[in-house]
Amino acid sequence: MSQQLAVGIDIGGTNTVFGIVDRRGNILCEGSMSTKAHEEVTLYLAELHQHLSKLIDQVGGSANIKGIGVGAPNGNYYTGNIEYAPNLRWKGVIPLANMLQDLFGLPTLLTNDANAAAIGEMTYGAARGMKDFIMITLGTGVGSGIVANGQLIYGHDGFAGELGHIIVIPDGRLHPGTGMRGSLESYASATGVTNTAMEFLTNRPDDASVLRKYKQEEISSKVIYEAAIQGDKLALEIYEYTGKVLGEALANFVMFSSPEAIILFGGLTKAGDLIMRPVRQHMEKNLLPIFQNKVKLIFSELKENDAAILGASALAWEMKD
Amino acid sequence: MSQQLAVGIDIGGTNTVFGIVDRRGNILCEGSMSTKAHEEVTLYLAELHQHLSKLIDQVGGSANIKGIGVGAPNGNYYTGNIEYAPNLRWKGVIPLANMLQDLFGLPTLLTNDANAAAIGEMTYGAARGMKDFIMITLGTGVGSGIVANGQLIYGHDGFAGELGHIIVIPDGRLHPGTGMRGSLESYASATGVTNTAMEFLTNRPDDASVLRKYKQEEISSKVIYEAAIQGDKLALEIYEYTGKVLGEALANFVMFSSPEAIILFGGLTKAGDLIMRPVRQHMEKNLLPIFQNKVKLIFSELKENDAAILGASALAWEMKD
Repeated sequence: MSQQLAVGIDIGGTNTVFGIVDRRGNILCEGSMSTKAHEEVTLYLAELHQHLSKLIDQVGGSANIKGIGVGAPNGNYYTGNIEYAPNLRWKGVIPLANMLQDLFGLPTLLTNDANAAAIGEMTYGAARGMKDFIMITLGTGVGSGIVANGQLIYGHDGFAGELGHIIVIPDGRLHPGTGMRGSLESYASATGVTNTAMEFLTNRPDDASVLRKYKQEEISSKVIYEAAIQGDKLALEIYEYTGKVLGEALANFVMFSSPEAIILFGGLTKAGDLIMRPVRQHMEKNLLPIFQNKVKLIFSELKENDAAILGASALAWEMKD
Repeated sequence: MSQQLAVGIDIGGTNTVFGIVDRRGNILCEGSMSTKAHEEVTLYLAELHQHLSKLIDQVGGSANIKGIGVGAPNGNYYTGNIEYAPNLRWKGVIPLANMLQDLFGLPTLLTNDANAAAIGEMTYGAARGMKDFIMITLGTGVGSGIVANGQLIYGHDGFAGELGHIIVIPDGRLHPGTGMRGSLESYASATGVTNTAMEFLTNRPDDASVLRKYKQEEISSKVIYEAAIQGDKLALEIYEYTGKVLGEALANFVMFSSPEAIILFGGLTKAGDLIMRPVRQHMEKNLLPIFQNKVKLIFSELKENDAAILGASALAWEMKD
């Protein structure tokens, strides 16, 4: 029975979630704490150690744990460092995997959250048995993890797979976080959809829309979704446009690594066919014939609340014994 | 001394070149024949068999040959088939690797020409020792081969790495071969550079240029290059523009697979700094900070005349004993 469980830790800008997972993807116990309460990473780790040690005791001690997997912004798989993460209070390079390894005496691997999501999907979810797929997370931002030949692509420096920052519309919308224009994330994220709504409302003063009832700061992806399912024409066009931009980007990704499937995860997928129909249409339209009607476009099979812990924990199963 | 040589065959739309290569990339003997003279693939193979058997005898017989590697348009590594190649007279699916294996009694692997070029560069050229790089061939068309984790990315169907067909300018220039608009190949190939010249000459009637001395059908990448090195302003702007489009595309590729190097090969590279300066500038400008000033942008180290045979032959060294 020893070495049959894995610890998963997902470090977000606001909160950290953690749990202990078995090989089938059942979360046996879990917890959460604030990330941003601690300006010092050592104090953060002391609190995490306290919480997680209790959970490890609950499952019979660390002899039952194969290792710790961590998903973290700007996490580098090769070094185990968090490097210059703009959304964390800890600046510079933080050797987080080594610090956890020293604290718990357990082997630790770390990568960014979207890569962890891809490994989670390959281990427990929609990508089981697949050797070539692309995971796209459509949340506040756009993240990605790319698997080819059964392996995650980390690139020569550990930072591969930043598909959210690929330029899809040259000289397009400004991304305030990166200073770049026309990146996928500027259109296909929750923020992107809201910005598209603002643009449409401003540039088409004659088009009626229930969205005009809201103040600018009240417009959110939720409000737009509700307008769209009520048949609001402008709201539907916002999804149409977002789906076009995302579909064109996915076509380019397919011509890069020719995946068996593209797996989508995150808030934007809740719009279902509103977004997926134009995504599929514009993806197929922009593919060479040899790629057409081949790529599965599917949603994650992991529960939204579990995905972060599961993805991180799956790193532990990749460790050599 | 047995099993120390490899056969390389490169099938082009017009000609086929073939040769026998040692592990260090020396071509011991070589030959060529017409591809398009034969409407029937069996007759083509009969002629190839005749030529190549003589070369194999010259090096002491097939006991000295480890295998045959083939670079071919629309070549599928997994199946060994040439599938629906638009530039060949043989239509549909041609099981070329199996046919060669039967003819010569030697194990045979096949891939497309750009993938073969990447493996050639990894085996004998500028990518020796690299595990993550992208090869871009800039000729009549734009081809590519992507290596990650030390392996070529073939994708789930064997067709990955069609970076020439990635859309870089939505609704941009029409590619007559594919019917798609704004693909990289429409700008960064020899044809693309010529088309840019036509556009510039038409759209800027007031700009002086030595290119105006030529008839439309005389404008070629060679003529443009010669005008540019003489300081012709319009010709220089053609390279500037081509370099911008290619550089922006390369930035996107870097954010996909984070390669150690991008290796460029083919006619357009002869323009040297005229093209490379804007390529580098616009690539760096469009990269996230974590990717900036990291990626080597280098030229192939293989001689142009040898590269096709070397690339194909390198497939044979990948075969398991």
